[in-house]
Amino acid sequence: MLTAIYTAVGELVGQGADKISFPVIAERAGVNPTTLYRRWPDVNALLEDVAIAALTRDGESVPDTGSLEQDLTDWANIIAGDITRPERARYLRAMVAARVDLVTNCAVTDARHEQAAQMTRRASERGEQTPTVQQILDHIVAPLYYNVIFALPLDDDHPRRLVRDVLAMTR
Amino acid sequence: MLTAIYTAVGELVGQGADKISFPVIAERAGVNPTTLYRRWPDVNALLEDVAIAALTRDGESVPDTGSLEQDLTDWANIIAGDITRPERARYLRAMVAARVDLVTNCAVTDARHEQAAQMTRRASERGEQTPTVQQILDHIVAPLYYNVIFALPLDDDHPRRLVRDVLAMTR
Repeated sequence: MLTAIYTAVGELVGQGADKISFPVIAERAGVNPTTLYRRWPDVNALLEDVAIAALTRDGESVPDTGSLEQDLTDWANIIAGDITRPERARYLRAMVAARVDLVTNCAVTDARHEQAAQMTRRASERGEQTPTVQQILDHIVAPLYYNVIFALPLDDDHPRRLVRDVLAMTR
Repeated sequence: MLTAIYTAVGELVGQGADKISFPVIAERAGVNPTTLYRRWPDVNALLEDVAIAALTRDGESVPDTGSLEQDLTDWANIIAGDITRPERARYLRAMVAARVDLVTNCAVTDARHEQAAQMTRRASERGEQTPTVQQILDHIVAPLYYNVIFALPLDDDHPRRLVRDVLAMTR
């Protein structure tokens, strides 16, 4: 049932639907609207759950090439390729639009944090100089998401440039 | 009349209004709904115009302290202080949520680009090493907006750390 609901929301968001209400979602998913009212306080909360599920379900594997520069470049390219897909970009915008108060944790950020920590841990073990996880989030992840969320074009070389910049900080 | 419309939208967004439609805005602004239908193709287009006006109207002056590090730090703190105000943060999210297709220019980004160019130009004239304008956008502006848009907390020291990072790239 959850899958039907998430799919319905995904389709509605994907079609750029203007009015996404519990009744509209329920009809599309073939469930009773009361199911939705019981489970989520409002549409935004449901929208956010769907967005997080969509943005983190991939189980992306973290690159392990033996060089931090290559790992980060591959990783930045995976992220860029993923979030620039029109459907994902729309999800992302719907997700942030649904946020009103400060969040203490964010599934998207948490996943990126964990992946960055894996890569820097391996690099440290190989004796490489590494930026901090926070620097990777600030200087690779943030600019990629910023461009996509603002609907600004992201050129093919952008991920590699960001990696080069963050590594230059540690020298 | 434009001011009345923009103020009405600002109030509605500020109150977290769920349904912002042309009739609702028109009633609040005391104008005829046809005025809105004639001027904007849809509510999102109006919302975006308002957001841009709100986010760029300040005519913020660009710091000129005689040191690029201090200029960038002051500037990053101004931006952080500005966009973390709850009303501004809401505007920002409403603006990005209204974007569907890639934009070729963005008033917010353009304004930041011009400010960064001013500061690096002055620093170059003083003989200082400077990052590029794109690096300033990627590594100072993007992480600040990223945190605010994702509703993640931004600590007081964050702007200064970002500036230190971007300057470390040029050494």
